[in-house]
Amino acid sequence: MMRCDLVVTASDGHARVCVLTTPHGEVETPAFMPVGTAAAVKTLTPAEVVASGARMILANTYHLMLRPGAELIARAGGLHRFMSWPGAILTDSGGYQVFSLAERRKLDDDGVTFSSHIDGSRHRLTPERTMEIEQALGADVAMVLDECPPGGASRDVVAHAVRRTSAWARRCLAAHTRPDQSLFAIVQGGTFLDLRMEHAAELSELGFDGHALGGLSVGEPREEMSAVVSAVTPALPADRPRYLMGVGTEADILEGVASGVDLFDCVLPTRNARNGQVFTSAGRLAIRNARYREDPRPLDETCDCATCRTFDRRYLRHLFTVGDILAHRLLTLHNVHHYGRVMAGARAAIRAGTFESYRRDVAATMNKDPGNDPELC
Amino acid sequence: MMRCDLVVTASDGHARVCVLTTPHGEVETPAFMPVGTAAAVKTLTPAEVVASGARMILANTYHLMLRPGAELIARAGGLHRFMSWPGAILTDSGGYQVFSLAERRKLDDDGVTFSSHIDGSRHRLTPERTMEIEQALGADVAMVLDECPPGGASRDVVAHAVRRTSAWARRCLAAHTRPDQSLFAIVQGGTFLDLRMEHAAELSELGFDGHALGGLSVGEPREEMSAVVSAVTPALPADRPRYLMGVGTEADILEGVASGVDLFDCVLPTRNARNGQVFTSAGRLAIRNARYREDPRPLDETCDCATCRTFDRRYLRHLFTVGDILAHRLLTLHNVHHYGRVMAGARAAIRAGTFESYRRDVAATMNKDPGNDPELC
Repeated sequence: MMRCDLVVTASDGHARVCVLTTPHGEVETPAFMPVGTAAAVKTLTPAEVVASGARMILANTYHLMLRPGAELIARAGGLHRFMSWPGAILTDSGGYQVFSLAERRKLDDDGVTFSSHIDGSRHRLTPERTMEIEQALGADVAMVLDECPPGGASRDVVAHAVRRTSAWARRCLAAHTRPDQSLFAIVQGGTFLDLRMEHAAELSELGFDGHALGGLSVGEPREEMSAVVSAVTPALPADRPRYLMGVGTEADILEGVASGVDLFDCVLPTRNARNGQVFTSAGRLAIRNARYREDPRPLDETCDCATCRTFDRRYLRHLFTVGDILAHRLLTLHNVHHYGRVMAGARAAIRAGTFESYRRDVAATMNKDPGNDPELC
Repeated sequence: MMRCDLVVTASDGHARVCVLTTPHGEVETPAFMPVGTAAAVKTLTPAEVVASGARMILANTYHLMLRPGAELIARAGGLHRFMSWPGAILTDSGGYQVFSLAERRKLDDDGVTFSSHIDGSRHRLTPERTMEIEQALGADVAMVLDECPPGGASRDVVAHAVRRTSAWARRCLAAHTRPDQSLFAIVQGGTFLDLRMEHAAELSELGFDGHALGGLSVGEPREEMSAVVSAVTPALPADRPRYLMGVGTEADILEGVASGVDLFDCVLPTRNARNGQVFTSAGRLAIRNARYREDPRPLDETCDCATCRTFDRRYLRHLFTVGDILAHRLLTLHNVHHYGRVMAGARAAIRAGTFESYRRDVAATMNKDPGNDPELC
């Protein structure tokens, strides 16, 4: 019975390598957490996720509270046992999905009432109920309930959401009792730097086990996100994990690493795989493209994942064209593995003191837009 | 460069265990060939298919000639290399799908012209073109082009199809030149026993490498299929493989084995998995059923497949309910493994001289109708 513990083992500027010790094993950071929305990283088995290098995944409280229900998972012995995942898990609070997916949402200072996007059933989340649910799920890390204002919201709206998020964070802290689960706070504030800095300072005083940046990568210009991440991250307690929620491309992640972020999650590698977009060390590749019709090369000639070791582009294009879901799983496997390699490369570069050149190289190659390179898309 | 070779290693009544040596390894029979329609056993990797005990799969010429095209596969080094399948492959002739799937089909004595069900494009199959396509695909076993009359066709229609199938079989034999590929004939004749016996006798004289029973399991009463299989199979050359096409449930397969059939294929384990039907040693199970909502048991407590070793019914039901395709792959893996176990059990029982009691046991348990057993469905 323990909470997470963080030890910094190397650093290069603000970028750092840490060992995050959780009740379900050690996680070397900077780490990318594949998204396991409904207690599965879509299409993949736990063994395949482990083979990508991932030791920690994210699961979505909103989806799990609706199906199969947090109490059912608790009776099954908790989320790790339910889904046979041997590593660490972080659960979000459900707030983000309530604000983006739920129907007929009604917000007040005490919490939020909403209708499920699946069957219209009514539900209520308060900070206390969120803690109850996340403690029932039993992840290694739980997130506080926050208010997520829409991208482009006015300063007044964002400031109001910050105040409410602070109040809810305090209530979550008071309601959270599970000794083997860490609780992370979420810094809001949109792209208003002063609101962000104040919120970070306020939350940092409360004794959370870790701190996240929320409400980013929701449509704001990339430079505004960069400005927030690079200013706020170093202001968060250095002895606790820092987590940039919902980010992003390889270059976005490495920019976060450069500012001292330890944890990331994003649906890009998994969702885009199911749409046929492949992340490679030479840029992105749309497997549907006719140019791969007879291409005998693996997706990425430098990749050692099971997909690249076994299958070539022409076969994967064929599978995708005929709609066999084997294509979805093989592309997902590769993309998750690719993200694992990018993170392993970042850790190695930090240890070697060469992180900035690694980051520049990645930004110059992997992050290529499909439209820009006729060789790739 | 060789054709297939069959050695009988044990027998029990008409039932027999053989080793079928192919250019891509040995196949112990009786064997079930999982169906790899479009160069993939839907949702599964080759390694997973091998782990089920399968050493030979079936691929569908009709689907592959349309997408990605037989010549593309030939340029890729043949079907085995294209799909990275290490074992043996049998290709059907495409005739069955032309008769069941294609649009605007026009049949004459020379061949059949049809429109693709995918894009309406026009194609023509003759015995000679079929051999060209199957030799380009390069399976270990090719099937002749046959005419498949609909279930319930009149005696005249069936007799006409038998004559045409014979003529086409001779033309296939003349056109087939690939020395590392075997060619199997197909006995037609519907449920008319005399037509079946005459056709079997005629084809047996022509020197094919093996013989199949086609046009069964197309809606005829089970007893009529049994009568045909038990009468015709022993009349086919005993020194060559015998193959019952498109069959079937565990009990149907074991009935074929009892008559001396060596090879089987069927979409049941794979297609039904994607619909949530699970084959177990205690009968069938519909994973959607609410009774499995909190069931901590594996799909089949006697099964050692990766699905049963790792996941329980409540988790698989959840995955199926939320529509994660991981459910499809885990159920497919189990079902194919289950069929592999049934065949391994049959071979062991034949060797032990206890095949009839094995067959009775299987028919009494595994073949249970979902509707009959409240414990299971």
